[in-house]
Amino acid sequence: MIPKDYPRVIIEAVEPQIAAGHYPIKRVVGEKVVVSADVYKEGHDRLAVVLKARQLGANDWKVSPMTLSNNDRWHGEFTVDAIGAWEYTIEGYAERYLSWVEEVTKKNVPGADLKSELLEGLVILKTSAGLAPAEDCARINGLMVLMETALAAGEQQVALELGVGSVMAGIMASYPDRREGYQLTPALAVMVNRPITRFAAWYEFFPRSQSTVPGQHGTLQDSIRRLHEVRAMGFDVVYLPPIHPIGYSFRKGKNNNVVASPGDVGSPWAIGNEHGGHMALEPKLGNWDDWDQFVATCRELNLEIALDYVMNCSPDHPYVAAHPDWFFHRPDGSIKYAENPPKKYQDVYPLNFSTSDRAGLWQEMLTIFLFWIGKGVTTFRVDNPHTKPVPFWEWVIGQVHRQHPQVIFLAEAFTKPKMMRLLAKVGFAQSYTYFTWRNQKQDLTEYVSELTSGDMKEYFTGNFFANTPDILPPILQTGGRPAFIMRAVLAATLSSVYGIYSGYELCENAAIPGKEEYLDSEKYEIKVRDWHAPGNITGIITRINQIRRDSPALQTYNNVLFLTVDNPHIIAYAKMTEDRSDIILCVVNLDPVHRQHSILHLPLGTFGIGADETFQADDLLSGERYDWRGPTAYVEFNPYTKVAHIIKLRRR
Amino acid sequence: MIPKDYPRVIIEAVEPQIAAGHYPIKRVVGEKVVVSADVYKEGHDRLAVVLKARQLGANDWKVSPMTLSNNDRWHGEFTVDAIGAWEYTIEGYAERYLSWVEEVTKKNVPGADLKSELLEGLVILKTSAGLAPAEDCARINGLMVLMETALAAGEQQVALELGVGSVMAGIMASYPDRREGYQLTPALAVMVNRPITRFAAWYEFFPRSQSTVPGQHGTLQDSIRRLHEVRAMGFDVVYLPPIHPIGYSFRKGKNNNVVASPGDVGSPWAIGNEHGGHMALEPKLGNWDDWDQFVATCRELNLEIALDYVMNCSPDHPYVAAHPDWFFHRPDGSIKYAENPPKKYQDVYPLNFSTSDRAGLWQEMLTIFLFWIGKGVTTFRVDNPHTKPVPFWEWVIGQVHRQHPQVIFLAEAFTKPKMMRLLAKVGFAQSYTYFTWRNQKQDLTEYVSELTSGDMKEYFTGNFFANTPDILPPILQTGGRPAFIMRAVLAATLSSVYGIYSGYELCENAAIPGKEEYLDSEKYEIKVRDWHAPGNITGIITRINQIRRDSPALQTYNNVLFLTVDNPHIIAYAKMTEDRSDIILCVVNLDPVHRQHSILHLPLGTFGIGADETFQADDLLSGERYDWRGPTAYVEFNPYTKVAHIIKLRRR
Repeated sequence: MIPKDYPRVIIEAVEPQIAAGHYPIKRVVGEKVVVSADVYKEGHDRLAVVLKARQLGANDWKVSPMTLSNNDRWHGEFTVDAIGAWEYTIEGYAERYLSWVEEVTKKNVPGADLKSELLEGLVILKTSAGLAPAEDCARINGLMVLMETALAAGEQQVALELGVGSVMAGIMASYPDRREGYQLTPALAVMVNRPITRFAAWYEFFPRSQSTVPGQHGTLQDSIRRLHEVRAMGFDVVYLPPIHPIGYSFRKGKNNNVVASPGDVGSPWAIGNEHGGHMALEPKLGNWDDWDQFVATCRELNLEIALDYVMNCSPDHPYVAAHPDWFFHRPDGSIKYAENPPKKYQDVYPLNFSTSDRAGLWQEMLTIFLFWIGKGVTTFRVDNPHTKPVPFWEWVIGQVHRQHPQVIFLAEAFTKPKMMRLLAKVGFAQSYTYFTWRNQKQDLTEYVSELTSGDMKEYFTGNFFANTPDILPPILQTGGRPAFIMRAVLAATLSSVYGIYSGYELCENAAIPGKEEYLDSEKYEIKVRDWHAPGNITGIITRINQIRRDSPALQTYNNVLFLTVDNPHIIAYAKMTEDRSDIILCVVNLDPVHRQHSILHLPLGTFGIGADETFQADDLLSGERYDWRGPTAYVEFNPYTKVAHIIKLRRR
Repeated sequence: MIPKDYPRVIIEAVEPQIAAGHYPIKRVVGEKVVVSADVYKEGHDRLAVVLKARQLGANDWKVSPMTLSNNDRWHGEFTVDAIGAWEYTIEGYAERYLSWVEEVTKKNVPGADLKSELLEGLVILKTSAGLAPAEDCARINGLMVLMETALAAGEQQVALELGVGSVMAGIMASYPDRREGYQLTPALAVMVNRPITRFAAWYEFFPRSQSTVPGQHGTLQDSIRRLHEVRAMGFDVVYLPPIHPIGYSFRKGKNNNVVASPGDVGSPWAIGNEHGGHMALEPKLGNWDDWDQFVATCRELNLEIALDYVMNCSPDHPYVAAHPDWFFHRPDGSIKYAENPPKKYQDVYPLNFSTSDRAGLWQEMLTIFLFWIGKGVTTFRVDNPHTKPVPFWEWVIGQVHRQHPQVIFLAEAFTKPKMMRLLAKVGFAQSYTYFTWRNQKQDLTEYVSELTSGDMKEYFTGNFFANTPDILPPILQTGGRPAFIMRAVLAATLSSVYGIYSGYELCENAAIPGKEEYLDSEKYEIKVRDWHAPGNITGIITRINQIRRDSPALQTYNNVLFLTVDNPHIIAYAKMTEDRSDIILCVVNLDPVHRQHSILHLPLGTFGIGADETFQADDLLSGERYDWRGPTAYVEFNPYTKVAHIIKLRRR
């Protein structure tokens, strides 16, 4: 009935935490976790509060003091220096020695008899002496003998000064009696991953399109050659659509035709035929030796491989025969193909997560991940995770991370905002975003602010793709080359993680009329390209990636600061390092058709630049240099000659 | 490893809830709980969401549908119609029938073959038929036979229209298949108390001061006579400082003198002598028969009794001998008296909550509450709860409420904001506030807005005391009679729960120089007053209390709407009922010395009054009536003749 024990100190409103601590916050190695909490206690005791952090499973906490600001709010921070699961908690306790010092100091008015208080102090000192190792124990005891001697001689003031003096206080700081305390339980979680989780440029290509002979099916060997060019453009991650055998039944023809012609290669998302399923390679791409060479070349080039993880099966997938209960059966005995009316995917069977063999299905899905991790894949781009139960993702990502905490999951959840967020909370390190459709200044400002502030910045990293095989946004269809440059600059500088799908550098923008779909989409046919075609922006993409590598300010996700620009077609934002050693100013003309110019307002105080100071503005894109002074600057754009500035501000 | 089951629907961000559901929200009988939550699911199913509420321990839930606004946010409400603990939760499920209707409707394009879909629909209908009672089961089966007949005849369109038509949909709405669903667990808690918890006028008096003969110790019989006058003034609650035997050791003399003179009555907060402790009556006040008569008279007059609950003991309290381990012992063997340096309370021993006999101490503290509840006390004003462990309050209030959910606890926690809030969260129905020191327009506006919005409105009710035996605020010391009227109007109309300590109606304001303490404080001596002394504001207090009784708008706590007034010395706010049938406008001159006048801006749209409409403004304080029209009004105050308006707005 009466509780056996209770928290002696109240610890509330700890930040950061997600959904009352149900989900971990996320960091990359080397980042800080800045923690604050309300910590208080009944009565008038002085409190001490410490922050404790450790890798999950470690014995010892890294302990650091927290400091009180006001209104019972305490602050501290720690740095995560290894990948994997971490935990942190807060311990607060009544600091008996400091409380006593405060009390006797207040009571020490002329004529006060503090004998009783001094005796109380000796009890506290004795307790701490018992907690100290031999040397400090001896020092405390020695000082106590002096205090007792002074007391016996009637020299209360001397005894008191010994008790509260700097020597005693210095020793006592190390041996607090924490019995009247509480440690927040359970601890809060942090998931720590590699820096590439939050700073990377992605490049997506179809291996089967990498042949140099038009119409010929490309191979992994062709792709190996292509890797060098991808690296030369400055990308960090190569992302491959599915590379598995493709089904024959209801195979789609070119432009999503429901009838395939002979020679049509089908959609790589219709996985599985007699050569195998999710753990097999499409034979036309090559064999496992080719794959191993592909992986080895990526390693050499310091490129990571992201593989598409697609929970679809073609009607010819081995699972269909081996595990018919994993699919949706209709009353007429047929298996239900994927649909999102009016769209039909006759070449694809979705998996039934409500199957009675749930354990078997989930385990197999985990096996696929582990298989490809064994084959050198470090990142998975997960197709449509929002159509599968979220608890599955929480489980499967957790299972993978227990063995392979370095693995990165990207959620391709182009769905409603709360589902996008939840998938990030349960373990997806990165998420596709609505960036692809945000073109106006206000929309971009609001959306990027939403992503990089509040709760979301603790667990959600938006991977800003400028295009995908599924999405050729209207701005690229109509805006042409200036729009491609503009959107590349935005993607690469608004987020520290961004990507393009190959063909972007060629400004490919032929669409099926009235749709966001590519005409002659590579999803249904082989596309051999001339990478040096006129009008390509390969040089500009390469420059942008180099600027990102050279600028620490562009390598951090949450540091976007939007600036005031008078012209509504021009957006400007700064990114800077915490120490202001790197300040990058991006100014982009959002109008791909017309010239625009404006006054730009610079928050010089924020930049640490004096109001009367002349400073240098180096345009890293064009190589031009300006001398600026004062809180405004003039900018001017012509879509055909200059779309954006990426300016490094340098103090003289 | 693989979870046995998992929530099939995601339910998140439920509001209201306090600290992730750790503490109950609070309501009074008859109030609504308006609930909202994010509810969603993977995939494309149509969802149905219901709100479920019940008294704790009841078998059946009251179930009501929730409706979707946007961005996956669902809304519902329920009304609490009995006191005690309630719980509420949310259940969401994939609505298989509606999902099917949506799917077939989308697919029903010319030439579509929907046979398979219709067979799927029949499976869903059959499941629901199995959930329906005989009559509706038969109706569903009958319609299904018609569908099957139509199907057999090749009349797909007829079958479809039977399946999705209004008759079938009407029946199906009652028998959803909820298997693909989830009910939020654990449920969230509501603590429901009586309306007087949130609408009451309190009057505090010392029974020992109720004699009519100066210097003579008043009795409960004197107090019974006084009750009639308190009732006549319109108060609902009489609040009595401790009425227990008072210690002799270190008894305080008048004006807190450390040496008592013979005949000095001592502080009622120094509880206990040979006549008993917390469960005894001070013999000079009377015996238990007198107490019973006092209680009976309160019942007759519909007055509730609030008793001070004070966890102090005089050195002569029986506990000191019986339970020496409940007190703080110093190394020199003495018991530690209460101190808050430089203040000393030599006549009071605080209780040691860290005693090894914690169970004995806590149980005894509970026994005191139960004893007085047995003696007719329904409300406890708890002295300094912030100096005792919060988990004790959570436990003891929980124990009392299990047997006596109607009991009200008022926290006298004049302490830091977070502790004040926490005490409310753990069970205190009412809290003293900083209102007593908020005198400027901006301060009042900010503070009252903080109390009545956000989280706090769900669990915190501020009892606005204009004065207490401990606090004679500077504004009353210097502002005289106009300040007393002004502060009474503010207390009584800004909060629906307010109180005064007797003497307020006489505008008593003699203070110890430089302090907020009353000179010749009643805490240390008997004070016999002339209740008809010149300058009294008894009539005004009575009028204010009558206006509160007549105005439903003033009986709700959270409905303060601050208005714009050009003059910074004049504050204005409206309170209105949800249906706008009662609109009260309070306009108060915060300057007790100078005349002030201003333009007042009226949000006519909010009031439901037309821009061109002439409406009546009845000053309920003065009886004056004005015809107003348009969004502004002129107000003028003279501290000596008019301090405030309490205006009822009436449409013609």
